[in-house]
Amino acid sequence: MRILALDSSGLVAGVAVVESAEDGADAKTIAEYTVNYKKTHSQTLLPMLDEVAKMTELDLASIDAVAVAAGPGSFTGLRIGSATAKGLGLALAKPLVPVPTLEGLAYNLCGVGGIICPVMDARRGQVYTGIYRFPDGERLEVVEDQMAVSIEELAEKLQHYGEEVTFLGDGVPVFRRRLEEELLKGEKIRFAPAHMNRQRAASVGALALRYYAEGKTETAAQHRPDYLRVSQAERERKERMEHDTVSM
Amino acid sequence: MRILALDSSGLVAGVAVVESAEDGADAKTIAEYTVNYKKTHSQTLLPMLDEVAKMTELDLASIDAVAVAAGPGSFTGLRIGSATAKGLGLALAKPLVPVPTLEGLAYNLCGVGGIICPVMDARRGQVYTGIYRFPDGERLEVVEDQMAVSIEELAEKLQHYGEEVTFLGDGVPVFRRRLEEELLKGEKIRFAPAHMNRQRAASVGALALRYYAEGKTETAAQHRPDYLRVSQAERERKERMEHDTVSM
Repeated sequence: MRILALDSSGLVAGVAVVESAEDGADAKTIAEYTVNYKKTHSQTLLPMLDEVAKMTELDLASIDAVAVAAGPGSFTGLRIGSATAKGLGLALAKPLVPVPTLEGLAYNLCGVGGIICPVMDARRGQVYTGIYRFPDGERLEVVEDQMAVSIEELAEKLQHYGEEVTFLGDGVPVFRRRLEEELLKGEKIRFAPAHMNRQRAASVGALALRYYAEGKTETAAQHRPDYLRVSQAERERKERMEHDTVSM
Repeated sequence: MRILALDSSGLVAGVAVVESAEDGADAKTIAEYTVNYKKTHSQTLLPMLDEVAKMTELDLASIDAVAVAAGPGSFTGLRIGSATAKGLGLALAKPLVPVPTLEGLAYNLCGVGGIICPVMDARRGQVYTGIYRFPDGERLEVVEDQMAVSIEELAEKLQHYGEEVTFLGDGVPVFRRRLEEELLKGEKIRFAPAHMNRQRAASVGALALRYYAEGKTETAAQHRPDYLRVSQAERERKERMEHDTVSM
């Protein structure tokens, strides 16, 4: 079982190939390439895939499914990831495994105790987040599904659980001080280290191995990214229309 | 603070650039490239570094230190990693941060509870292993330093602790069934998933950020890989000499 995984939901562009052994004795990452740099994903994602395929002499036809970080995230990033995954799925006639972005991020910390809270900066005073746990140290439990809320609302939710929380994601540098010094002052909180705290395509791929086995697949034609919020363009259009209605 | 990290201690070849923010609010991976494929590291490591440097427009002079998985591991792999790190350190006049291979591997699972036990197949009936913990969820504690022992001896050691154990490393596919069905039958043991169970240069780099801050550096000229055992060539030479002595 071999999965090609893509993540371009945030600032990170990532490509990975993961595979599980037929006898179930081992699963591993064949290749992973991650770039967290200012270049746009339209410049990076396909060259990265090409590079990984060449380096591992990968025959794309040997892939069983294409996994993609399916949103929320940057609108442009999601569209690039989704279009690439759909193109590959169609061309190879292979299913897609959509992995909710925040679940992929949380899976970076597979096996860590307490609550896992990935936080992505969603602008306009909000974060994309979700609340997760690894109850048996392996399976990802969705305690609260991914959502767009204010950091204050998230902090309030987390206080209800009264458990240790490990944060990760690009929202951390934005909100860390407020969480530590104000919103969750005195609570046991931690922040994931440098090798675990941003999107990884290998995490998306490893989680997709599980989701594929559970039948959570769709066709390339069916796949749509889950934006979770309407885009800025749609929002502005709506505001304009409401304004026009009021002015009339 | 920016660290270039290399790991070619096992079958995996890995290159990563990690950095910590000056205000300490965030540390992250700028780029990571990992290949677990049959090509030899002399063919992969430098092209991978070159690729990562190009993709992130990395000025090598902006690196503060070069981290390297410093052994044990494959003799050829260690020599390639060490020679590359020494060359870079000399040319850039930057210190090296040697990261014991098993500590780098264990750091993949930063924050996971219980005992962390990386296992590399060392051939001749032995594994390279070590016993680790994350007592406060962040700092890596070396419970038993890296060593070359038989899998039976390792299992005996682990039973003394009576804690849950998470295994990882290329020794897992070799020894998993024996551990599950015989040596540690009935004990609580787990195996790290596909995105966490092999060498990662980003883990070496993230751990090196800590070790650098603790002053654990050396010059390029000082650096030697820690083979932990004598090489096959040395072993055979010794055996020949002993044999010659006996024959005389």
